Order: sequence, then structure tokens, then C-alpha cells
Amino acid sequence: MPGTDLVQELIEALRCLPGVGPKTAQRMALHLLERNREGGKHLSDIMRLALEKVGRCNSCRNLTEHEECSICANHHRDKTLICIVETPADVIAIEQATQFSGLYFVLMGRLSPLDGIGPEDLGLDHLQQKLATDNLKEIIIATNPTVEGEATAFYIQKLAARENVPVSRIAHGVPIGGELEYTNASTLAHAFGSRLSMTE
Amino acid sequence: MPGTDLVQELIEALRCLPGVGPKTAQRMALHLLERNREGGKHLSDIMRLALEKVGRCNSCRNLTEHEECSICANHHRDKTLICIVETPADVIAIEQATQFSGLYFVLMGRLSPLDGIGPEDLGLDHLQQKLATDNLKEIIIATNPTVEGEATAFYIQKLAARENVPVSRIAHGVPIGGELEYTNASTLAHAFGSRLSMTE
Repeated sequence: MPGTDLVQELIEALRCLPGVGPKTAQRMALHLLERNREGGKHLSDIMRLALEKVGRCNSCRNLTEHEECSICANHHRDKTLICIVETPADVIAIEQATQFSGLYFVLMGRLSPLDGIGPEDLGLDHLQQKLATDNLKEIIIATNPTVEGEATAFYIQKLAARENVPVSRIAHGVPIGGELEYTNASTLAHAFGSRLSMTE
Repeated sequence: MPGTDLVQELIEALRCLPGVGPKTAQRMALHLLERNREGGKHLSDIMRLALEKVGRCNSCRNLTEHEECSICANHHRDKTLICIVETPADVIAIEQATQFSGLYFVLMGRLSPLDGIGPEDLGLDHLQQKLATDNLKEIIIATNPTVEGEATAFYIQKLAARENVPVSRIAHGVPIGGELEYTNASTLAHAFGSRLSMTE
């Protein structure tokens, strides 16, 4: 009598993916087994390779399997401009949405003393060194507008001020296409506080 | 300058999973890389193993990595009772919802002449052999109530009649917990046609 059940094990293993419950995992496993074995084998290979090889970029801390990520290694990018973000997903979002041509610095988190996450965990000592030596024209802080994100932004602002590097923060306010009526109160209050002059 | 980007390749590869678009694939890839490398490696191993080893049960055609699946190999199951379903997912659903203790026969599809799927593709020649030799007490047809599913059921009914094996079809009607008002017309019509006598 068979002792193992690989189909069941595959269904269980797929649940390590975010947002995948028992029903979805079952659908995925049966789909791969019945209809896409080649795609599944390719996925399995790439997954193993990526999980073994991908580490952090020595310069910006983003995920990469090389010493330097493709953005830091790109000679066409403006090395005097650094945008500071919390996660690799933020880098992808900014790359897709904007024309930003500088470099990034990926914190891989945010300051959160309660969770024991301090400046060193976010590589802020490394950032401080960059601020002191890299002759930067500007750093743009794009941490999330949450309590921890704001605290992180404030900390970085102080670091930059100490080295006399100009700092900016991306704008927060009513989203484009949004409506005032459905914008939450703190966003609206922030939008009023950060209003820009339109006088010529 | 780096030529490959494993993170990007992993995101692309994850899209072979059903229901996974670009955003979900990105979230999955970054989740594995940032937070669950062990789970991801385990998934990669199981996936490769399952895709290489899992084939069809010699007896019921269900997915298994053994000669016989765990249900067919279980001596406690009633071997004179066979439930005929379209897919392995149907077996899982019936196992979870019912007390059915017989065996299954998995068609892995349904009769569909337009798509070139004939009786041999569904193993119906193999089923015919079972009907002739296995001394069955009953076969229960649980194909889906679609046009092709009904045609498949009709075909199997004829096969069974030729071998004098009793056949039944699972009931179709208003779902338990459903409301007549929201039940579609053909289901309701079918429910009327298949009404059961309550006279004692």
C-alpha cells in the first residue's frame, strides 16, 4: 500500500505562496499535473536557482543574483540621485510608473523599535557612508506614509542634513482620479497642509 | 553588466500557475525571496518530484506516483462499487463531502467529438472491460451536468446496460441552502422532472 501521496504533498507545499488557500493550491497542483508539466518543471528549476543565488546588491541592497543589481550597474543612470524605498516591490512600482533615472536604496523594512528593527538592520550605516562620500545632488525619500515609514523618513532626513545633502519627500495627497468625497480625512488634511502655490 | 535577472525570471515563471497575473506573481516571488526561502525550496523540490513521478493509476486512471492510487490500493474500500467522474478534483470533492466507500474511475475529460475526444481517450474501453469482468454491484455516474457530461453519462449507461450492471446518476436539482428564486431555469425544470415521491 502506498505510503506517500505526492499530489497531496504538492498541494500542501503550494500553500507557502501568499494568498494561496487549500482550494487554490489544489487547482494549481492539478493544473500543473494535468495540463502544464513543462511550465511546472521550468518554474521548479527557476525557483530553486533564484532561492539559492539571489542575494542583496552590494550597493543598494535590492534583490539580485549579482554583486551589483542591474540598476546600479547601468552606466546610463544618474549616480548622484538616490531614491530611498522600503521594499524591492517599491523599486518595481517606481520603475514602471515614473521616469526616475537615478539609483535606489532599498531599506528592506522600516524603523520599528517595537519589533527590534533599528538603523543597522535597514543598512542606514551604509547609507550614511554613501551620504558622506558619494557627492549626491539629492536624495528622495519614498518610504510609505505610515507611522513607521514617516519615522524612518525623519531619521534619514537628519542623516542627510548632517552631511549637507539636499533631501526631498515624494508628495502625499489626493490620488489622481480620486474624489475628495471618498478621500480619507488624514490624506485630505495632509493635502491641505502640503498645498502648492499656483501664483505665477 | 548583469545579463540575467533571476528575480524577473521567477516572476515570469510563476505566471504558469492558474489565476496568477503579473502583480500576484511579483508578490509571490518577493514573498519567497524575502520571507520564506525554506518553504520555497521545499516547494521547488516537491514540484519537480511530482511532475516527474506522478502518472496515472493503472486501475482508475487517477493521478498517483504509484502503480495503483491509494484509494484503489485500500483493502477496506468496496470494490464492487465504482463512481465515474471527469477529473481528479471531482474525486477529492466527493471524498471530502460524502461517505462513499467504493472506488472511482477518472475519465480525465468528457466525450467531445468536436475536440476530437472519443471513448478511447477517456479509457472507456478499459471501463468496458471492468464492467464485463469485475462483477460490479453498481456504477454511479457523477459526470458534470453539462452537454458533454450528459452525453458521456449516456454513453456509459449504454455500456453498463450491455453488461447488465446497474447504473445510477447522482441527483441534480436545487442546491441545499439555495433559494428557488435564484435557481436558474434549467436546474429548476430538472428538479421538477426528477422529483421524488414522499408518500409513505
